[in-house]
Amino acid sequence: MVNENEWFLEPMESKGTLFGLKLGQRLHQEQSKFQQIEIYQTETFGKLMVIDGCVMLTDRDNFLYHEMLAHPALCLHARPRRVLIIGGGDCGTLREVLRHPEVESAVQVDIDERVTRLAEIHFPVLCESNSDARAQLLFDDGIAYVRNAPDGAFDLIIVDSTDPVGPAEGLFNRAFYGQCHRALADGGLLVQQSESPLLHLDLICQIHASMRGEGFAQTQLVSFPQPVYPSGWWSATLARKGGAQLMPDPQRVDRLAQQTRYFNAQTMQAGLALPNFVAQALDAAL
Amino acid sequence: MVNENEWFLEPMESKGTLFGLKLGQRLHQEQSKFQQIEIYQTETFGKLMVIDGCVMLTDRDNFLYHEMLAHPALCLHARPRRVLIIGGGDCGTLREVLRHPEVESAVQVDIDERVTRLAEIHFPVLCESNSDARAQLLFDDGIAYVRNAPDGAFDLIIVDSTDPVGPAEGLFNRAFYGQCHRALADGGLLVQQSESPLLHLDLICQIHASMRGEGFAQTQLVSFPQPVYPSGWWSATLARKGGAQLMPDPQRVDRLAQQTRYFNAQTMQAGLALPNFVAQALDAAL
Repeated sequence: MVNENEWFLEPMESKGTLFGLKLGQRLHQEQSKFQQIEIYQTETFGKLMVIDGCVMLTDRDNFLYHEMLAHPALCLHARPRRVLIIGGGDCGTLREVLRHPEVESAVQVDIDERVTRLAEIHFPVLCESNSDARAQLLFDDGIAYVRNAPDGAFDLIIVDSTDPVGPAEGLFNRAFYGQCHRALADGGLLVQQSESPLLHLDLICQIHASMRGEGFAQTQLVSFPQPVYPSGWWSATLARKGGAQLMPDPQRVDRLAQQTRYFNAQTMQAGLALPNFVAQALDAAL
Repeated sequence: MVNENEWFLEPMESKGTLFGLKLGQRLHQEQSKFQQIEIYQTETFGKLMVIDGCVMLTDRDNFLYHEMLAHPALCLHARPRRVLIIGGGDCGTLREVLRHPEVESAVQVDIDERVTRLAEIHFPVLCESNSDARAQLLFDDGIAYVRNAPDGAFDLIIVDSTDPVGPAEGLFNRAFYGQCHRALADGGLLVQQSESPLLHLDLICQIHASMRGEGFAQTQLVSFPQPVYPSGWWSATLARKGGAQLMPDPQRVDRLAQQTRYFNAQTMQAGLALPNFVAQALDAAL
């Protein structure tokens, strides 16, 4: 919502927190087939995309989320050749994935083509790898796409979704995780954006338990700052199908850190660090 | 400010961001000799203390700040016996400092006694170590206290202040850092809360440069999540007077992590990790 003083405000009633950004002008607003999409110019965070009233991304700080959703998993997988992105319509995750020369194909499946078309106009930097020969952009139901994928078709599946309400709800349950497990090759990794370690710890525990219940051998939380999301502290959950204990490839990490703004060998380890209260909650849940 | 829907809202006009918490009732409000102090019950973050319109702390998440302000420095110092806390009137930092059996004395100097008296009433857990025989609570001007301290009087000085405007402004300049350097013993550490790595990177660079300009041999950023402060991502800056390169004591870290909710060996290293964009800014400034 926008108040009289030209702040975009996102109240999260269920968690009792609110975040706001000072606005310039509204650049676009539409009701797509799936959701309400707005684009604003902000005073200090560049452009802002809002979906159904929730901040999706800004120019200024999306690098934190996109780098930490993509790179830890890609550097922990021994040989990530075939990548599937579910959601991610702004194309920022795809761009990070394609920084890895090991990746031979990256399929992005977002249900709402309008998000991508608006990102191409308003966030062109995020879309700069869309024409990479390895990239394939599909606009379709990600759940159905995974269900129809052959067994073992992917080395890495990244679920870059909105919150677990509305169109993305089906991306946060056991049936979907089971299909992801089937569609991953042995040693494959599933990564899902998994909300705030402070505000959504119960959800995080459920996600880990559900993924393990569907056969994933190891789950791991990756946390990182994300100022425009509730609490400013966000996470991804990483799950491994079979294979060996996850170990980062130091050469790939260092090579990649030449191109990144947040990610490097230190911040990758920082992302994998578990605060005591998170470790205790996960221990109790698993 | 409190809006009509009973949100406490803290707009940070200069940075274009806003944070809010859903309120229950207001428990207290007063104009002390130095500042406006308010205490609220929130819906989801326990009690909230506000000074001059800015969130100081909540029950729910203050452990992140207090643990990360105190413990990395205490575990990096070879033998932290004499500790000085400037500010810190809510006593949460003092409580963390006194968890360390190596500490023989901890002097807290906050200019505003009312903050401590209100913390005793509304945040009794934070004040539970105030009667520790090693603790001394003074209500005085911290700048003058440091200026009048004998040379080499302290092993660790922690500046747990409000933002660098109003009463705390004098805690963010070279003259003060010079006096801290003088009042520290060789190998001593100065720690200052240093705002948000995303929003206040220029200030952080200035702090590091000023500290080095006053003779500190090494400066190091410690970052951590702090959801109720602007951007949800906060930092402390740590500066060493002489002595050797800082190395944590693994035994003290592990012993302490039995008592903490965020801090442990992993999250301590996570705090010391420098994102690329921060490392580049510091390199350019120093």
